[in-house]
Amino acid sequence: MNQIDAMDKLVVEFSRLPAVGRKTAQRYAYFILTRTEAEVKEFADALIDAKNKIHYCKICANFTDKEICDICAREKKDPIICVVKEPKDVSALEKVREFNGSYHVLHGVINPLEGKGPNDINIRSLLERINNEKIEEVIVATNPDVEGEATAMYIANLLKPLGVKVSRIAQGVAMGSELEYTDPATLSKALSSRREM
Amino acid sequence: MNQIDAMDKLVVEFSRLPAVGRKTAQRYAYFILTRTEAEVKEFADALIDAKNKIHYCKICANFTDKEICDICAREKKDPIICVVKEPKDVSALEKVREFNGSYHVLHGVINPLEGKGPNDINIRSLLERINNEKIEEVIVATNPDVEGEATAMYIANLLKPLGVKVSRIAQGVAMGSELEYTDPATLSKALSSRREM
Repeated sequence: MNQIDAMDKLVVEFSRLPAVGRKTAQRYAYFILTRTEAEVKEFADALIDAKNKIHYCKICANFTDKEICDICAREKKDPIICVVKEPKDVSALEKVREFNGSYHVLHGVINPLEGKGPNDINIRSLLERINNEKIEEVIVATNPDVEGEATAMYIANLLKPLGVKVSRIAQGVAMGSELEYTDPATLSKALSSRREM
Repeated sequence: MNQIDAMDKLVVEFSRLPAVGRKTAQRYAYFILTRTEAEVKEFADALIDAKNKIHYCKICANFTDKEICDICAREKKDPIICVVKEPKDVSALEKVREFNGSYHVLHGVINPLEGKGPNDINIRSLLERINNEKIEEVIVATNPDVEGEATAMYIANLLKPLGVKVSRIAQGVAMGSELEYTDPATLSKALSSRREM
């Protein structure tokens, strides 16, 4: 294996990362060569370690290294499930520190264009949880885009017959934003969802 | 080690990469968890491999996995050395396919603000090469910024007494660029370095 091979291999690996092109991957690879052997080993170990130790929580499908994640293992939770698309959405919501229920990670959304139907995402176990955990409300917190909305609608139609309350996170102008720079779709939503003061 | 630890460790490792902040590092780390174990192992191996196999060429200090890099090992080279700051500059220049000499990688430039003097970069071996390889010309291709210019000046002053021709890559407006968007310093250089047609 000559230089080009070992180097190119690393560049290829880096360029698989989301939104990383060849130039950036090359920059990362050159950076790796400037690190000490121990530092590079630590990086490689961190990759293997994270992949080996972390898997899906048996209940909510969030990432965890235990059988059941820390959030699901909490005692005295509200009987509310917040449904999200991805594990990183859980991190984002947990930062707010206002929600005391549990989560349910879909690992995707319904997207017919990509051939993704309801059976390709983690919806089925949500139905079981509603009975098992005596859930009273499901908040659908998928992204406010076409696929996220479609998925929210699907989940609402699926759950309502079970007698559980289904709600959707509010959509409108972002806090601290300026109307001047807000897109028309968001403004339209903000107007139609207006609340009496 | 709980989830936060293994995940955080990986995020920390990714955020060491140049121009990668915490958000991007997190995105990379989540992406790693979606890959198969074999794919993650391949990534980790590529890191270790590149670091283990690639070191500095004994002659020009470019990255190589041999004792002497492919460029230095070429036969029938022109007796010209092109001096660059970093190995990636060699890749950039080699893409042009017009230069048939060899390179010399400084691994840095003179930068008094960062406490980097001439002895902290790979200049000494350049002097030896000029005799050993019967070099006739040295092209200084450091970046056209303050440190690159200072380093070029230093090298020129050092080499001229040896009777070797020292030149500097041309500076001016970039091909395909528009004058309207070209900065004044570049325009000034393009004017003062104008050539008769």
